[in-house]
Amino acid sequence: MLLLRIDRKSEVPAYRQICTELAALVDEGSLSPGDRLPPTRRFAITLGVHRSTVVRAYDELRALGYLESRGGSYSTVRRRERPPATWGAPEPAAEPPLLDWASMARPSLRAVRGQGAMDTTRAPGPPGMIDLDRLSADPALAPDDELRRCLKSVLARTRGGGLDYAEAAGWRSLREVIAGRLCRHGVAVSPDEILITAGAQEALDLLLRYLTAPGDRIAVEAPTYGMGHALFLLHEVVPVEVPMRSDGMDLDRLERVLRRRRGRVKLVYSMPSFHNPTGITTNQEHRERLLLLCEEYRVPLIEDGFEEEMKYFGQAVLPVKSMDSRGIVLYVGTFSKVVFPGLRVGWVAAPHEAILRLVDIQHASRIAGNTVAQAAAARFCAGGGFEAYLRRIHRFYRKRMQTLLRELERRLPDGVSWTRPTGGYTAWLELPERMGPEDELVAEIEAAGVRVGPGRRYFARPPAEPHLRLCIACADEMRIEEGCRRLGRALEDRSG
Amino acid sequence: MLLLRIDRKSEVPAYRQICTELAALVDEGSLSPGDRLPPTRRFAITLGVHRSTVVRAYDELRALGYLESRGGSYSTVRRRERPPATWGAPEPAAEPPLLDWASMARPSLRAVRGQGAMDTTRAPGPPGMIDLDRLSADPALAPDDELRRCLKSVLARTRGGGLDYAEAAGWRSLREVIAGRLCRHGVAVSPDEILITAGAQEALDLLLRYLTAPGDRIAVEAPTYGMGHALFLLHEVVPVEVPMRSDGMDLDRLERVLRRRRGRVKLVYSMPSFHNPTGITTNQEHRERLLLLCEEYRVPLIEDGFEEEMKYFGQAVLPVKSMDSRGIVLYVGTFSKVVFPGLRVGWVAAPHEAILRLVDIQHASRIAGNTVAQAAAARFCAGGGFEAYLRRIHRFYRKRMQTLLRELERRLPDGVSWTRPTGGYTAWLELPERMGPEDELVAEIEAAGVRVGPGRRYFARPPAEPHLRLCIACADEMRIEEGCRRLGRALEDRSG
Repeated sequence: MLLLRIDRKSEVPAYRQICTELAALVDEGSLSPGDRLPPTRRFAITLGVHRSTVVRAYDELRALGYLESRGGSYSTVRRRERPPATWGAPEPAAEPPLLDWASMARPSLRAVRGQGAMDTTRAPGPPGMIDLDRLSADPALAPDDELRRCLKSVLARTRGGGLDYAEAAGWRSLREVIAGRLCRHGVAVSPDEILITAGAQEALDLLLRYLTAPGDRIAVEAPTYGMGHALFLLHEVVPVEVPMRSDGMDLDRLERVLRRRRGRVKLVYSMPSFHNPTGITTNQEHRERLLLLCEEYRVPLIEDGFEEEMKYFGQAVLPVKSMDSRGIVLYVGTFSKVVFPGLRVGWVAAPHEAILRLVDIQHASRIAGNTVAQAAAARFCAGGGFEAYLRRIHRFYRKRMQTLLRELERRLPDGVSWTRPTGGYTAWLELPERMGPEDELVAEIEAAGVRVGPGRRYFARPPAEPHLRLCIACADEMRIEEGCRRLGRALEDRSG
Repeated sequence: MLLLRIDRKSEVPAYRQICTELAALVDEGSLSPGDRLPPTRRFAITLGVHRSTVVRAYDELRALGYLESRGGSYSTVRRRERPPATWGAPEPAAEPPLLDWASMARPSLRAVRGQGAMDTTRAPGPPGMIDLDRLSADPALAPDDELRRCLKSVLARTRGGGLDYAEAAGWRSLREVIAGRLCRHGVAVSPDEILITAGAQEALDLLLRYLTAPGDRIAVEAPTYGMGHALFLLHEVVPVEVPMRSDGMDLDRLERVLRRRRGRVKLVYSMPSFHNPTGITTNQEHRERLLLLCEEYRVPLIEDGFEEEMKYFGQAVLPVKSMDSRGIVLYVGTFSKVVFPGLRVGWVAAPHEAILRLVDIQHASRIAGNTVAQAAAARFCAGGGFEAYLRRIHRFYRKRMQTLLRELERRLPDGVSWTRPTGGYTAWLELPERMGPEDELVAEIEAAGVRVGPGRRYFARPPAEPHLRLCIACADEMRIEEGCRRLGRALEDRSG
């Protein structure tokens, strides 16, 4: 029997008093989840109030989540949730799940999950592990102070509006800065031919949404960017793999592909500078012929310039986009692989008509980008901080790459060959088939204390020979030396 | 005849001297784009050097973008680009474009562009214009100082890593804060059941990518969120429109739809609180029945709680997600409609198995979110700033909504009916058919100095009667009063 005290002289209406009392009983545990409350008619008689008073109180308590009336005319006390002091893993559901969320994903999505480059859950490894896998600007070299200054300066000068949505194509002054930077690389685009994206990955995602439909074919280098393969799977497009040679994509092969599948290859995707994973940079002739081929077959060319700024040996070769007088090159750039990945700022430089379509897709899929990040990046570049930072990291990475190439020469057994990049972060090893299978090999190398990039990540159909990508982005010279020593020993073991 | 001075005693190699001299001639304009350089053999004789020296110099100049050799054996001076002092519109291309970028978009994308809510280019209107259209937190009320403090505090405590990629599902402490907030709304989820997104729009985009394929049907309220329609078009899914009644989605109709198309409706999309555009909030019974229907037909329910926090009249009704014991509700939340839209922080709360799939799609399509923004939002909430801010804006918006409803009563002619929201930003007008057609009406209202939301934006198949959405997000009481006066006059004119 539930007894409540109602104060008839109070200014608080009776229904609110009932409400407060019952809520308190639940909160203190006198009423437990599942307990039935008295029927309104009977309770009203008990309390000496009108029935509608009780009805109103119950209604409020239901709205507040104290009561429920599912599956019956009785009101029962509902289980209420409170945040725990510390969070554990999700609790098992009270009732068996109704839907199998894993199997509801489209098959293509399950394939995405299987792509090696997607492995975001990989543990950081024991303390002594040397990481020659991670490709992202070294946090140890990050210009934190400079960036902080830029963010502060941006925040100080904006009021409300500065934290509001950016213009559709992205923060104007950032687009101007990027147009200016591209000019230095010989690319003539106006800010209206630039779209700011959340890194190069979103740029590629938008381009695929724009230009492809499930089942379409696209020509890509083999090997190519592992997260590119994840994206191709997500979009259900079919990558036609064109082998990389020592001087870049095999253009004879590309020409055959374009001729044989005339009109059915929707785009060509290429990384002419510091190709990921091989580190190869193509020369001027190669770029001219690639462009001519795309022009001849009227296929858009996505030029991924994700490390355009990372040339630290010899002369720079200008991007293909710099020769794009017919407007068929869609150039992708990013700050993420050079500086502050967490800000997520990249871009597409493309003919204005193409930008308009990309703006539509971006707007429909996420409204706008992060204003503060974009404004801070613009400030960083405009103030010369980016240039100074580049000069500084070039010195570091030049030495790191020299160390890597010297140590590979010294430590690796016969039969292993590798690329000799003139910039960027990665070199690419090809190993004799007898050293495989690749996954075993990678596991043994990891057991020896070095993490490397398994070659199969970078192919749709991996070849028989094992390949490894070595990345110097986050390892200093001492670690590179020790890493090569360990790698050499592991490979000796398998070649013996 | 091209004459260069070569200093044979210099330590600078001859090829570099040739290179520098020729580059200078181009830079100063003595050589113009299109000018042919002498053939290497002849030039070598003229200069008294070996031919390979000239070849090497030409190679470097081509790499630097000074020369090109497209379409012939001659090397010619190439047009080099410099950033202009001020940027204008894109220059017309030198040659006619090879590709028609507009027609290369998939038809669905062209439909997206036509969706009324997509109109991002709409001019801000003359100074006196009263904006009752814009739905985003009022910049005038934005907690800029507080946010600045949070950003500074985040930046001060992170070194390199803090600007690095966030965890796959988003910044951990933000997920904890959001789990805590959801608890207050009766929703029991752990941080592992939360994914941070770039606002609610990305959340919806990821959910559609996960659960639908082109041609699939989804049940939605009519009217519903305009940018939702843009997204449905982008994904090529077919919205089955279920009419809104004064108490929410017509559930008898929904049941018929689910029964008739059993297994073929892939999800139900609903906004139970402060529905956009109508402002309607459903009651507890409605929510219980909606959930039971989705459970019975085993259809995932996307509950869009984009304005959950914007209850400022009466008692809060808890989200449907709070009753979701079978794990079929995918709850979408965001900070963008309440505070700092430019930070782009939203989330999905869903069963862990569903979150894993959404993480995959998000990772494949944009790697990760903005770390700094996420950490700053977490700090803002954890420090109590969000609560205090909410209390403050509730006072403002309560008054604004009261003003709107009072003035509508006072100013609008007979035959016009409207909703009476208990929170949020929007109210919804239905007008007699004779006042239409809607686009004419909207144009006349705008000519009278008020911008409103045209009803057709919110439907796939708009009804015959004109509808208008009025939004108080960015207009203070004085502007609301004056806006209603102007609106009343414009409607009088058309009803006369």
